[in-house]
Amino acid sequence: MIPRYSRPEMVAIWSPETRFRIWFEIEAHACDALAELGVIPKEAAKTIWEKGGAAQFDVERIDAIEREVKHDVIAFLTHLGEFVGPDARFIHQGMTSSDVLDTCLAVQLSRAADLLIADVDALLAALKRRAFEHKMTPTIGRSHGIHAEPVTFGLKMAEAYAEFSRCRERLVAARREIATCAISGAVGTFANIDPRVEEHVAEAMGLAVEPVSTQVIPRDRHAMFFATLGVVASSIERLAVEIRHLQRSEVYEAEEYFSEGQKGSSAMPHKRNPVLTENLTGLARMVRAYALPAMENVALWHERDISHSSVERMIGPDATVTLDFALARLTGVIDKLLVYPENMRKNLDRLGGLVHSQRVLLALTQKGVSREDAYRLVQRNAMPVWRGEGDFLTLLKADPDVSKALTAQELEEKFDLGYHLKHVDTIFRRVFGEA
Amino acid sequence: MIPRYSRPEMVAIWSPETRFRIWFEIEAHACDALAELGVIPKEAAKTIWEKGGAAQFDVERIDAIEREVKHDVIAFLTHLGEFVGPDARFIHQGMTSSDVLDTCLAVQLSRAADLLIADVDALLAALKRRAFEHKMTPTIGRSHGIHAEPVTFGLKMAEAYAEFSRCRERLVAARREIATCAISGAVGTFANIDPRVEEHVAEAMGLAVEPVSTQVIPRDRHAMFFATLGVVASSIERLAVEIRHLQRSEVYEAEEYFSEGQKGSSAMPHKRNPVLTENLTGLARMVRAYALPAMENVALWHERDISHSSVERMIGPDATVTLDFALARLTGVIDKLLVYPENMRKNLDRLGGLVHSQRVLLALTQKGVSREDAYRLVQRNAMPVWRGEGDFLTLLKADPDVSKALTAQELEEKFDLGYHLKHVDTIFRRVFGEA
Amino acid sequence: MIPRYSRPEMVAIWSPETRFRIWFEIEAHACDALAELGVIPKEAAKTIWEKGGAAQFDVERIDAIEREVKHDVIAFLTHLGEFVGPDARFIHQGMTSSDVLDTCLAVQLSRAADLLIADVDALLAALKRRAFEHKMTPTIGRSHGIHAEPVTFGLKMAEAYAEFSRCRERLVAARREIATCAISGAVGTFANIDPRVEEHVAEAMGLAVEPVSTQVIPRDRHAMFFATLGVVASSIERLAVEIRHLQRSEVYEAEEYFSEGQKGSSAMPHKRNPVLTENLTGLARMVRAYALPAMENVALWHERDISHSSVERMIGPDATVTLDFALARLTGVIDKLLVYPENMRKNLDRLGGLVHSQRVLLALTQKGVSREDAYRLVQRNAMPVWRGEGDFLTLLKADPDVSKALTAQELEEKFDLGYHLKHVDTIFRRVFGEA
Amino acid sequence: MIPRYSRPEMVAIWSPETRFRIWFEIEAHACDALAELGVIPKEAAKTIWEKGGAAQFDVERIDAIEREVKHDVIAFLTHLGEFVGPDARFIHQGMTSSDVLDTCLAVQLSRAADLLIADVDALLAALKRRAFEHKMTPTIGRSHGIHAEPVTFGLKMAEAYAEFSRCRERLVAARREIATCAISGAVGTFANIDPRVEEHVAEAMGLAVEPVSTQVIPRDRHAMFFATLGVVASSIERLAVEIRHLQRSEVYEAEEYFSEGQKGSSAMPHKRNPVLTENLTGLARMVRAYALPAMENVALWHERDISHSSVERMIGPDATVTLDFALARLTGVIDKLLVYPENMRKNLDRLGGLVHSQRVLLALTQKGVSREDAYRLVQRNAMPVWRGEGDFLTLLKADPDVSKALTAQELEEKFDLGYHLKHVDTIFRRVFGEA
Repeated sequence: MIPRYSRPEMVAIWSPETRFRIWFEIEAHACDALAELGVIPKEAAKTIWEKGGAAQFDVERIDAIEREVKHDVIAFLTHLGEFVGPDARFIHQGMTSSDVLDTCLAVQLSRAADLLIADVDALLAALKRRAFEHKMTPTIGRSHGIHAEPVTFGLKMAEAYAEFSRCRERLVAARREIATCAISGAVGTFANIDPRVEEHVAEAMGLAVEPVSTQVIPRDRHAMFFATLGVVASSIERLAVEIRHLQRSEVYEAEEYFSEGQKGSSAMPHKRNPVLTENLTGLARMVRAYALPAMENVALWHERDISHSSVERMIGPDATVTLDFALARLTGVIDKLLVYPENMRKNLDRLGGLVHSQRVLLALTQKGVSREDAYRLVQRNAMPVWRGEGDFLTLLKADPDVSKALTAQELEEKFDLGYHLKHVDTIFRRVFGEA
Repeated sequence: MIPRYSRPEMVAIWSPETRFRIWFEIEAHACDALAELGVIPKEAAKTIWEKGGAAQFDVERIDAIEREVKHDVIAFLTHLGEFVGPDARFIHQGMTSSDVLDTCLAVQLSRAADLLIADVDALLAALKRRAFEHKMTPTIGRSHGIHAEPVTFGLKMAEAYAEFSRCRERLVAARREIATCAISGAVGTFANIDPRVEEHVAEAMGLAVEPVSTQVIPRDRHAMFFATLGVVASSIERLAVEIRHLQRSEVYEAEEYFSEGQKGSSAMPHKRNPVLTENLTGLARMVRAYALPAMENVALWHERDISHSSVERMIGPDATVTLDFALARLTGVIDKLLVYPENMRKNLDRLGGLVHSQRVLLALTQKGVSREDAYRLVQRNAMPVWRGEGDFLTLLKADPDVSKALTAQELEEKFDLGYHLKHVDTIFRRVFGEA
Repeated sequence: MIPRYSRPEMVAIWSPETRFRIWFEIEAHACDALAELGVIPKEAAKTIWEKGGAAQFDVERIDAIEREVKHDVIAFLTHLGEFVGPDARFIHQGMTSSDVLDTCLAVQLSRAADLLIADVDALLAALKRRAFEHKMTPTIGRSHGIHAEPVTFGLKMAEAYAEFSRCRERLVAARREIATCAISGAVGTFANIDPRVEEHVAEAMGLAVEPVSTQVIPRDRHAMFFATLGVVASSIERLAVEIRHLQRSEVYEAEEYFSEGQKGSSAMPHKRNPVLTENLTGLARMVRAYALPAMENVALWHERDISHSSVERMIGPDATVTLDFALARLTGVIDKLLVYPENMRKNLDRLGGLVHSQRVLLALTQKGVSREDAYRLVQRNAMPVWRGEGDFLTLLKADPDVSKALTAQELEEKFDLGYHLKHVDTIFRRVFGEA
Repeated sequence: MIPRYSRPEMVAIWSPETRFRIWFEIEAHACDALAELGVIPKEAAKTIWEKGGAAQFDVERIDAIEREVKHDVIAFLTHLGEFVGPDARFIHQGMTSSDVLDTCLAVQLSRAADLLIADVDALLAALKRRAFEHKMTPTIGRSHGIHAEPVTFGLKMAEAYAEFSRCRERLVAARREIATCAISGAVGTFANIDPRVEEHVAEAMGLAVEPVSTQVIPRDRHAMFFATLGVVASSIERLAVEIRHLQRSEVYEAEEYFSEGQKGSSAMPHKRNPVLTENLTGLARMVRAYALPAMENVALWHERDISHSSVERMIGPDATVTLDFALARLTGVIDKLLVYPENMRKNLDRLGGLVHSQRVLLALTQKGVSREDAYRLVQRNAMPVWRGEGDFLTLLKADPDVSKALTAQELEEKFDLGYHLKHVDTIFRRVFGEA
């Protein structure tokens, strides 16, 4: 996570201020439950909310205490005590640091997931708009980078829409994975704290109860969360790579928006480079990489060790901030993408009609030519066209073996572009529920 | 995937015979739909089912054809034609190779997922049995590898049960991700094939329809599938590491079953090593690693390139076969695990009562001692015990500052083991729905 | 490792037969040293060489014994004893299984490295040939996929040559990393075996002595080995991606060789797809992925655990066989690559002279125009050309602000292609030591 | 990279101030060479050094310009021009941004490598000191976590010393990989800049000349660099895991230094946790993860794309800062590690003499007992001891089949600890060149 690739709202989730505020809320809600159970005085719980709620926590002061005691939660509690006064001794009763830390992380990751889901929603809206805008804009479909058969630019957007709809579902599931609360004490047995405290805090913080914790919330949850972010990043990479390809000088069917003052190259002033989508390609590599240490974090020793902590201090912000930035950047790219239908048409016609070869092949077999023979007939007329020696339709008409099966008019019908687009509506209805 | 770490049922899913049989079924179901739509004669579809259904496909023959034409599906269709005769020309009408390949992969991965889910079910059954068997077997809970407070061995099993219940849900979701059918032609536009063919084949093969494909089924689905396997593998690693720790010479609270003829070490005949769980640790590393190329596979070029194919030919079998083997091996380990409650008890008592320090701390604060003072009082009595110089309870009783707050009897009450186990039932009810 | 992506020589290194032969040699060499030291009878050592050397080890028999004793080296020694007779009791004296296993792995990885280095040599030869063949074949250099300035196709090959020369050095270093021998007993202390045995076996097997082993050879060596293979694979990917780009329909500057019988697509017979380099892209992902478990293998517990073993049984063959295959396939691709200089020239001219914009920019500044002004002058003439509205040279000549600084003739000089190629010789001399 | 796991000297390498200073030096050295070649006036070069050398670059100002022109190098050059005045137009002549950026990155990574090598040197010194201090401190060697045979604590340190000596060599090689300079213009052809400029800048900046660049320095170099850091991190993890094991409550043979004010647990005041080495385990996961995107960065498109840039902006600092911190932390841990030889001795004796079983086995075979029989004899006496039923030596003496081969005195000799340590000197000489 570096400022260049960060947005303030996601960064704020990971600030010390936010963290201490969440810690306070967890502690204060726990006090409410403890008071309700008669473990601590109700007045104390009230005082804690009042004085702690009004407190401006001093991050530097807490850091200073931590440097001495080498323990972050104790440092915070000490500082909190400075505001709350004598009733502070009722805070954190029967709890362990991880109760606070892990529940806080659950809140932070849930909020991060909410932002990411909102990011995907914005991206979906942009994709849908562009999809309908170019629903019938023909362009060549390419497999292996080689011209295949016509599609539309809207279909490309629809595919991305369907893919990010799946990403949205995955993020919702990932959020559910990590949105649990544990207030279960030193080794998760509730020896010193009633399970009803956990239930109360969970509900108050918008989390589910962790069924069984072992001082920590089990890390398979977080592994699944970060693995999901890695998959979402990979979908970002796919769309970014598509745009980079479309902007290539030789293809030039679409282009990232290029603002007025922007300079493409210090040396070559004419250049307009797809730098945003190249950047997204790199960011996707990073988010993907963070999935690995998250998976290695699962196998903690016995009831817990703390090796996961340094990893999460890094990938918690790094993965969510980077993905948030990437999704927003991609939305901007899609939203403002310059699309060049005339260039698409030019590329579509570039291969002298070869893109219609399969239709000819099928027509031949439907006239009784064996598949193998049909294949050979098509290929022997396709190869010269491929080498730039002639036009496919003309050559086919002149081939006597072809003429035996198909008339000139039948051949011409096979070169109709509209033929390929007849099911665009079907696909749109599947993807968007409308066409 | 190597024989040593393979089980036959999963291996069979990936055999050429299975693959060709699935290919045949996809093609034949497509013929049914094409016949129903009047594109090909109904008689032809019937013949294809009859002759193809009875055919014994010759893998070596298909390989030989492929070496010539360098195309696997064409090689298969050629061979299929040798059985079906002239009606073979109606097969594969308007379809593209990927329609067959990707739908087949969906069938294979779905079947693999079914086996994996069954594996997890077997593991869950073993975990549940051992959990209830040792529900109240006390053992020391450890954080950071250091004795913390008592838990039970049943709780360890319950935690694993909850974790693998989550893994099961994830596998079900992962199966749903990849269980889709695409019969959409060269670039996914249904130009040469009616979408109703896809609908028919999907239903016949037990798959959902892929809303929008681009010759290929989008690879974010597969990335999510293999990432999920990586997370499941990480949970296997966690439980394996737990057992390895418990079997350490100094801990020796549990042990892998050791068969009669087995030799632990060529040099040291007394040794009984946790080789199965060490092996599982290694296998987990492998399954996790396969998630990465699956994620890199997402960003195919334009409507598709074929870079994903070599990856999937390898990780398809490698990841599923290895994970299937690992789950089954882990189930065996849990099922036959030798558990030593008396050693657990010995370890529990090893620290001279220090594991009760938090209770003393809490009792002091409840008597009005400030948290900081209580902490210091406990720590100054804990340290000599830690160094092996005395028993915690004795020292506490002799400490006048402690005595001011707690009587000898009150102190003794804090050393009751049962205190820690009072909520085991609560946790079991959460995890198993019963206690 | 699957047959489709394997070559026999590398596969043979990993066969059981090879492994057992190496095990035998290690044991027999150790016997020589033990005999020399007077630990065992010299006659016994001689008998072991004679009878073991002549033995045809029966892999299935060894497997059968292993299934009983669950220990591979004991199974082998039992089988070896069946050939050697009573003197077999002198074999493996004071040794531990890992002495045999790890030294054998060192031999196998060294041989694998030798093959890989030979593969790179073949690739380098192909690259050098094509580099000199096309040393002066002009083609457009592209940054961000956008036309930049002219290069030559030979320079592209030279870059790859330099890159794979570095890969060769890395492989030589990686080979040195893992080519060590450990015969140091149960925990590496030589308690039961003289260090001179290790020295003898090391020399006999062409290995260095491992300075300090702990039953096992430390796994940081293997991590470095497999990480290096991952880097080499990444360089393969780079060259493969370059060729895939050059073969795109719109670019079409080069093409993989397409054999006579080969069929590109079951549906579109005209298609010639870069399937080999796409395949290489996928294989690179696999080899890269294997680096990770190798790194996770380093942190074995205490003097060793066996979690690395399953990983190495898989990635040992998988990584080396796949990389060997990939290098050989890439060599074939480069060797037979169809290069289309006329298409390169066509693409070079496509942008109406914009590729010379930097020269104009520099010329302006050299005439005293400020960098900012020169940039603006160039950009305002470049933009219409970019939009297809005119030719760059013509526009520049017509721009009065440009004319103030540069005459028509001076401008024309800036559009000379040869200008860009004047240092090709310099670069070739740096890379190849000749030009 | 987060402050908690950062050290100032490494962080400084990656500050904007350092980066701009290096950019300036590269530009100014290039001007010297250009002046020497007569391309620009010598006076201009002098002015640039004087005014630029004295300038305090204003990072916020440069950022502001970049926000407008969206190009970092142009922003810097604009700002530099504000100090230098009219002669600024001679700066960056014929160069491209990447000439500056990539050469700067080479300088930064070289300096980072220097720090890392110095870190390893400090670690090696600590390891050597502790190795000799405990050269003859006996401790049990463990394979699979199970007691095997005696080693010394010094040998553990010696193994780590040998491993980090290899890491040092790898870092030196990795530094050489990335320490190259490219000043070769827009696509690496030196079209607008003489190769002698590159030679001059390379020498002035302490770098080698990049033989062939393509606007960018090839990224296989950086992949190798970061992969190497990943291997070093894995070695850190190994030593960290060793210490975590030794500090376990049941083992307790060593312990991280625990400062006065430090609090181990908010709930359990007696706890002293190996938090530093647990932290190192997590940091190792992170550094390892960064190797992957570095490898994916290799396959840039054609002469370059900029997808690597975002990755390097993140992993450049993240990987080097984290590894620097981890190495320093590990050095501190080793330096101050509390070692408990008496506990080592206690553990050594824990298995009732079983650790001597191999010696007995060997002695039996040397007396003519077949290996299989000897194995059975040892195992049948070892098993009761393993179950805590008796002492190994006593049982062996009482076994008539054993007595047939070995007298009581011969048996007793096999239980001598010194026997295992007789080659410690040999190993130390190999590792340290002295004993």
